[in-house]
Amino acid sequence: MHLNIVNPNTSAAMTRIIAEAAARVARPGTTIRTVESEFGPESIEGPYDDAFAVPGLLARIAEGETAGADAHVIACFDDTGLDAARALANAPVVGIGAAAFHMASLIVHRFAVVTTLERSIPVIETNLLRYGLERRCARVRAADVPVLELNQPGSNACAQIGAEIERALREDAAEAIVLGCAGMAASAAALAREFGVPVVEGVAASVTLAEGLAAQGLTTAKRGAYAKPIPKTYSGVFARFSPKP
Amino acid sequence: MHLNIVNPNTSAAMTRIIAEAAARVARPGTTIRTVESEFGPESIEGPYDDAFAVPGLLARIAEGETAGADAHVIACFDDTGLDAARALANAPVVGIGAAAFHMASLIVHRFAVVTTLERSIPVIETNLLRYGLERRCARVRAADVPVLELNQPGSNACAQIGAEIERALREDAAEAIVLGCAGMAASAAALAREFGVPVVEGVAASVTLAEGLAAQGLTTAKRGAYAKPIPKTYSGVFARFSPKP
Amino acid sequence: MHLNIVNPNTSAAMTRIIAEAAARVARPGTTIRTVESEFGPESIEGPYDDAFAVPGLLARIAEGETAGADAHVIACFDDTGLDAARALANAPVVGIGAAAFHMASLIVHRFAVVTTLERSIPVIETNLLRYGLERRCARVRAADVPVLELNQPGSNACAQIGAEIERALREDAAEAIVLGCAGMAASAAALAREFGVPVVEGVAASVTLAEGLAAQGLTTAKRGAYAKPIPKTYSGVFARFSPKP
Amino acid sequence: MHLNIVNPNTSAAMTRIIAEAAARVARPGTTIRTVESEFGPESIEGPYDDAFAVPGLLARIAEGETAGADAHVIACFDDTGLDAARALANAPVVGIGAAAFHMASLIVHRFAVVTTLERSIPVIETNLLRYGLERRCARVRAADVPVLELNQPGSNACAQIGAEIERALREDAAEAIVLGCAGMAASAAALAREFGVPVVEGVAASVTLAEGLAAQGLTTAKRGAYAKPIPKTYSGVFARFSPKP
Amino acid sequence: MHLNIVNPNTSAAMTRIIAEAAARVARPGTTIRTVESEFGPESIEGPYDDAFAVPGLLARIAEGETAGADAHVIACFDDTGLDAARALANAPVVGIGAAAFHMASLIVHRFAVVTTLERSIPVIETNLLRYGLERRCARVRAADVPVLELNQPGSNACAQIGAEIERALREDAAEAIVLGCAGMAASAAALAREFGVPVVEGVAASVTLAEGLAAQGLTTAKRGAYAKPIPKTYSGVFARFSPKP
Amino acid sequence: MHLNIVNPNTSAAMTRIIAEAAARVARPGTTIRTVESEFGPESIEGPYDDAFAVPGLLARIAEGETAGADAHVIACFDDTGLDAARALANAPVVGIGAAAFHMASLIVHRFAVVTTLERSIPVIETNLLRYGLERRCARVRAADVPVLELNQPGSNACAQIGAEIERALREDAAEAIVLGCAGMAASAAALAREFGVPVVEGVAASVTLAEGLAAQGLTTAKRGAYAKPIPKTYSGVFARFSPKP
Repeated sequence: MHLNIVNPNTSAAMTRIIAEAAARVARPGTTIRTVESEFGPESIEGPYDDAFAVPGLLARIAEGETAGADAHVIACFDDTGLDAARALANAPVVGIGAAAFHMASLIVHRFAVVTTLERSIPVIETNLLRYGLERRCARVRAADVPVLELNQPGSNACAQIGAEIERALREDAAEAIVLGCAGMAASAAALAREFGVPVVEGVAASVTLAEGLAAQGLTTAKRGAYAKPIPKTYSGVFARFSPKP
Repeated sequence: MHLNIVNPNTSAAMTRIIAEAAARVARPGTTIRTVESEFGPESIEGPYDDAFAVPGLLARIAEGETAGADAHVIACFDDTGLDAARALANAPVVGIGAAAFHMASLIVHRFAVVTTLERSIPVIETNLLRYGLERRCARVRAADVPVLELNQPGSNACAQIGAEIERALREDAAEAIVLGCAGMAASAAALAREFGVPVVEGVAASVTLAEGLAAQGLTTAKRGAYAKPIPKTYSGVFARFSPKP
Repeated sequence: MHLNIVNPNTSAAMTRIIAEAAARVARPGTTIRTVESEFGPESIEGPYDDAFAVPGLLARIAEGETAGADAHVIACFDDTGLDAARALANAPVVGIGAAAFHMASLIVHRFAVVTTLERSIPVIETNLLRYGLERRCARVRAADVPVLELNQPGSNACAQIGAEIERALREDAAEAIVLGCAGMAASAAALAREFGVPVVEGVAASVTLAEGLAAQGLTTAKRGAYAKPIPKTYSGVFARFSPKP
Repeated sequence: MHLNIVNPNTSAAMTRIIAEAAARVARPGTTIRTVESEFGPESIEGPYDDAFAVPGLLARIAEGETAGADAHVIACFDDTGLDAARALANAPVVGIGAAAFHMASLIVHRFAVVTTLERSIPVIETNLLRYGLERRCARVRAADVPVLELNQPGSNACAQIGAEIERALREDAAEAIVLGCAGMAASAAALAREFGVPVVEGVAASVTLAEGLAAQGLTTAKRGAYAKPIPKTYSGVFARFSPKP
Repeated sequence: MHLNIVNPNTSAAMTRIIAEAAARVARPGTTIRTVESEFGPESIEGPYDDAFAVPGLLARIAEGETAGADAHVIACFDDTGLDAARALANAPVVGIGAAAFHMASLIVHRFAVVTTLERSIPVIETNLLRYGLERRCARVRAADVPVLELNQPGSNACAQIGAEIERALREDAAEAIVLGCAGMAASAAALAREFGVPVVEGVAASVTLAEGLAAQGLTTAKRGAYAKPIPKTYSGVFARFSPKP
Repeated sequence: MHLNIVNPNTSAAMTRIIAEAAARVARPGTTIRTVESEFGPESIEGPYDDAFAVPGLLARIAEGETAGADAHVIACFDDTGLDAARALANAPVVGIGAAAFHMASLIVHRFAVVTTLERSIPVIETNLLRYGLERRCARVRAADVPVLELNQPGSNACAQIGAEIERALREDAAEAIVLGCAGMAASAAALAREFGVPVVEGVAASVTLAEGLAAQGLTTAKRGAYAKPIPKTYSGVFARFSPKP
């Protein structure tokens, strides 16, 4: 089985974290390409960054389709470009935010999300609403940590995330925690031990979902929402992305 | 990895169908015990049958826990006894209805469910509402086929299910079909080919989700909804199920 | 008019409390049988207990049907086994949780529920969602009191319930309180006086609803959700519960 | 026990129908005053009529309070003036629409409403949404019969209502029918027999709910939504309605 | 373009505040009639006042229709009588509450409302639900200020409103504030400066929406909810309001 | 007042239609720049086109901000890039889809949308859900007309749109119609005359809303969802879009 995991920002450091998180859970026979976008934002913090991350992401999804990927993963917790990627791909496409929400829904009545910045809360809340899982989430919280500081030595990120988890458990009656950023993937196991509750991390969740969809032979529905793009001309820097007949 | 799949009715024929569907998608290293309940209804059609299926199911879940199962599957599309099983188990518990809904949500905007009998529609609608996925389901339809006729030679079941799928595609704008009974598991691939849309079948969906949860090391949250049962005395035929300290 | 009130646990002490609460509001001409389950859990605290309470409850519902009850009451605030009981019975079946929510909805914009243990909150929240009344409930709170301590001399239960009511009034803008356990029935009047707001207690609510449904000649709909169980064989200890043609 | 039933239009003929429907279900000891408004619209068909029905209704509610009514009923299916009446009264106030919805919710998964005119559908849909019961209603249908023709000899009303019930059962999977106008009260029993499903009629439903609330000693919450009106001056024809200190 | 702005209470002082707020945003060519009700409550605080404000309001709406108004505004934040006014009018009718909610929805993910008295919170919450914008509102808060004290010299109203805005920004993550009373119109600009967030005020919002609807040539739909009232006889003090053929 | 209207595809023909629709409703003093994207898809049909339309759109929004626009309009019914544009801009940003939904909500209980292609239905449904207006929309329908054929001589587009409107009025009880594509702007008046119901067209709706927001001095909230993008490096073709400090 072959997975195409796309980090839709351009940070190679984050790609490494994602690749490691994926490797921890992947089946023995699964081969994984983990790759960042060739162009676009160096990190994704809010809807403006999201917008400029999508074309680079779609280029990587297209490469994966051509290479025969059995499933794709979008490794940004905002699920950046998810609908466009599904329209492009025949193989299933899993966003790490969606993956974490769906997985958490199978082990709790209500979970809480701890993400990086306050501006990401509305993006995540809107995704929960779209997926239908908003009632399963007690609250989306922000630890007030910029994405690129998450894994920097000497950063206070871990302590701030822990403090927010503690509040989610005490104030929101959360039964499990969903970590709201790909960059937090390396911390899930330690946080689960520290707080004694399940901690769901989207990269791992999405890898197992992608494997599962592929094992079932399921592909993205090509009727309705994710119908194949209609052939037409894109101009300028996007000419090469024009849908072909 | 070891999975404990429980068919909560007493039909060994249906257990065989479930075991075959599970085997088709399971990872090479996964060992699976598929077993029906020792006592209870021979098939589950509506909430009265559901009620009497739960104790037998929980006995099998308890056996699986003792045997060290990494995850449990409840192989009835009603997700019979799901909350009780989660309260009992430390390992994650996946219902095949929930599994199918979550998996379908990853490949469509809206799916339709085709189940056996009209009386099961409210059960399924209520589950969709509880899980949060009611907006993702265009409609729950019944093919008017008793469960035990599904796989009988000479039955008209297949034609009736096909007719209902055809209506779901034409009238409900469904982008994929979810088959609403464990007994339909063997037909999923053929129906997908016939109608040219993804057909999601809950046994396969739940096996891959159970494997995925176990691969992530996730267990049922033991805080809140699924806290360990409080030790107390059950009397009569249920004495042996009394929660122990 | 004849009512069949079933306490779905095996505690005769709780049956007495329920019978007294029922007697306080019943019409002069109403005869009431209040009875606990013959077998099952001694108290119901969470979904595992719920599951083992249902068969014993259904036995009592069946007895009531045979005896010509005009309506049935399920006297556990979780509304344990409500759908199964409705499928079994022709007479209407009222759960004390549902009864309290519906009654409270007629005298407030928003109420709060005060129940016993935290693990019961998700059960109650899910019921509110199923009934449609989740927006009418400001919050479900737990007083952290085991069910069987509620009426024990020297227990701190009353003070803890009062403290939680006080919080519901101050923090949740609740306009009335719903007591979330049959065992609290005896305290409703005193709490209403103490806090100066309506306090709705499910046993009284359900008795008057059951009387009302019977007075209108309404019976459980036998089309769709609560259709008569299909004749089939139940095996083992449940053989005697097999639906008959 | 004393009930104050107000028909908020000025039609004495409709008051008689309401009084008869109330008498059929009331307890032996209940005394009932059924009275139409002294001024206002002769029938209520849509929101403009609703608006002019409220002051006359509130005058009758005030009379009932003064006379010591244990509960009030607003006998228009739109639940005209319900919030204002609750603000005015200490005794509980039940609208026949709300009463029918709540009662039907206790015997079905989904009901359908059959009302008179299309313009009443949005009013009823909005009430269902406010009460929280919109998911319990499969559809609100109009039989296209003016209110005052409902009980006229030679009218085609009965046939049209029957045709709409037939559609609700066939197309909406309704398990029971709610009759959406006080003027249909006399037909409920016959329609239930004709169609073989429960038919809920709001006058009977509200009388038993009003009796039930009174039997429990419940009164309208006076905190929040239904707080006592603040003393102030009303001018012109409404001077006499000015809230007193 | 001609607008008919109706203050549905009888306070001329509040009419002046409304007229000034309207004048600040109206287009050069717009002529505006701002008028209070001739009879009814001197201020509107809760549903009882609402009920008695509607007939006087509808008289003013009818005058505006006759005078050829291009649009009507109901200048009470409860949107008192909105449905009745729409049934009466052909020109569009905008409530200042609805206007503020819709406008705020265009510049934020979530806003908070700060109104006068606690009893108005349920009215506003119910309106948000009816309009569909309840998820766009983080919370409705009350500053505990009677309406008629809002603009009195020496009143503490401003400080209390400011304190509540401060809480909405800190506790509710509100991105903008909606002022929940026509009487607060004069304070919007100063509060926006003080707190550095957009402050939406309903009178200004409704004037620009009314102008916009008229500029598009849009009128109230006369099919369904707002169909023309059916000719019939109103009696007593409302005789003059009887719908004419 | 200065408006910046961006057609986020590259079709100059559609820009002309949009400019004419805007001119029909704009205030005398309003100056409008209507411009298509410099690069990207020639039409927007589904989420893949949406993704590649956003960068070109944002370039035009940035130009408008620099030029001092008082408000921006995104003239694609999908509201392509709305959140990103709001994060970028201080002036308010109105999408023509959102504008049409909000305006229609002020004149009906329920509207229907008629758009071009089936694949756009899920996009529009998701937007309605995000805005909160999903209950105000009876149904989103597709006329099965490619966007670029809408205004071609000899196309059957008008007839197909008319047929779908007719179905919306008959089957969905729609009280008004919302036209679901900027390219339909020129037809609104004729369709309103033909079908005798209000027909809301998004370009006109958004122009008047943009003017209204500007007249009130309202700007996009810069707290939470639409906070100013954080300065960082975008690489490749997007380097020039990097958020500046």
